[in-house]
Amino acid sequence: MLPSQIQRLIKELSRLPGIGPKSAERLTFYLLKQPNEQGQQLAEALANLKIGIVFCEKCCNLSEKTICRICDNLSREQQQVCVVEDPMDVFALEATGAYKGLYHVLHGAISPLDGIGPERLTIGQLEKRLDGKTIEEIILATNPTVTGEATAVYISRVLRPRSIRITHLAQGLPMGGQLEFADQDTLKRAIVGRRES
Amino acid sequence: MLPSQIQRLIKELSRLPGIGPKSAERLTFYLLKQPNEQGQQLAEALANLKIGIVFCEKCCNLSEKTICRICDNLSREQQQVCVVEDPMDVFALEATGAYKGLYHVLHGAISPLDGIGPERLTIGQLEKRLDGKTIEEIILATNPTVTGEATAVYISRVLRPRSIRITHLAQGLPMGGQLEFADQDTLKRAIVGRRES
Repeated sequence: MLPSQIQRLIKELSRLPGIGPKSAERLTFYLLKQPNEQGQQLAEALANLKIGIVFCEKCCNLSEKTICRICDNLSREQQQVCVVEDPMDVFALEATGAYKGLYHVLHGAISPLDGIGPERLTIGQLEKRLDGKTIEEIILATNPTVTGEATAVYISRVLRPRSIRITHLAQGLPMGGQLEFADQDTLKRAIVGRRES
Repeated sequence: MLPSQIQRLIKELSRLPGIGPKSAERLTFYLLKQPNEQGQQLAEALANLKIGIVFCEKCCNLSEKTICRICDNLSREQQQVCVVEDPMDVFALEATGAYKGLYHVLHGAISPLDGIGPERLTIGQLEKRLDGKTIEEIILATNPTVTGEATAVYISRVLRPRSIRITHLAQGLPMGGQLEFADQDTLKRAIVGRRES
């Protein structure tokens, strides 16, 4: 019933995560109502998304140059490397302003069920980075999920022979959360990880 | 911190309704992980969205030809015209399969607060359609909102001098809803509009 180009956009939008057929319809009809520029600008932004984007040779993060802005910034702590699953995690940590060291992006987590073994991640590159460099601390900042924690355990085992301090992000109650609504696992970690006040 | 083309897509996506900056980030990083085709296909679908789309000369719905497929379909009831606010409403009504007549798309609702008066809608075209044609029933299917109902009231006043049957969609309890959770207005309309069973 709908013109084919409208159907096509609905189909393409509903392939995105978190956008069902209903939302895709709503977005499409919204764009139809907008001046042509908005759709065109979005189309251009999409078409150009990956042009000129490479992986940083040091930390494997997304970058416009062979060495990313963070690795290239000598004013950052060169002795600390924070290991994260995804580029988005770097973005989230940078937004806090609380970390001034370097990063290493794994591009995923070990997940045998999905056929993702350690060789699919950038753990080899991480080891190479440590060879001969004066890195003193590795902060494991994988997600507090089954796959994220398995990845952290694997990496800490691989790095154990080296005399490097290995830490991980604190786990416990999220800010603004309420004790009575915290899940059991979170509460358990908050008790086990309690600190002197 | 992020490469400019990534920032740009995040900005463009967050201009869409219902997509906040966080969702825009998530979608962007999702697309970065996908094979290039998916982003390109979406970009193409967006760029081509409005190409060849016109308003049907009869019903003002979106169409690929000067007369849309519904108006062009002589097997549909030519005596009934269902008046809706948006092309999406035609889509929703067609999906039910319960209506076999024609449509008229207003492209909005009267909303003085937003500066939208009746002249901004396609009410003039609707009147022209009625001149000399054997239309017997106008079904007002604007949204059951303040602006939608004001529009329905306005149209029924404009059309009253003509000897045409004017109806509106039934209002009452939605299917699957529970009486105790229905809002007061809905329940009131369900009582007032009760029918013999």
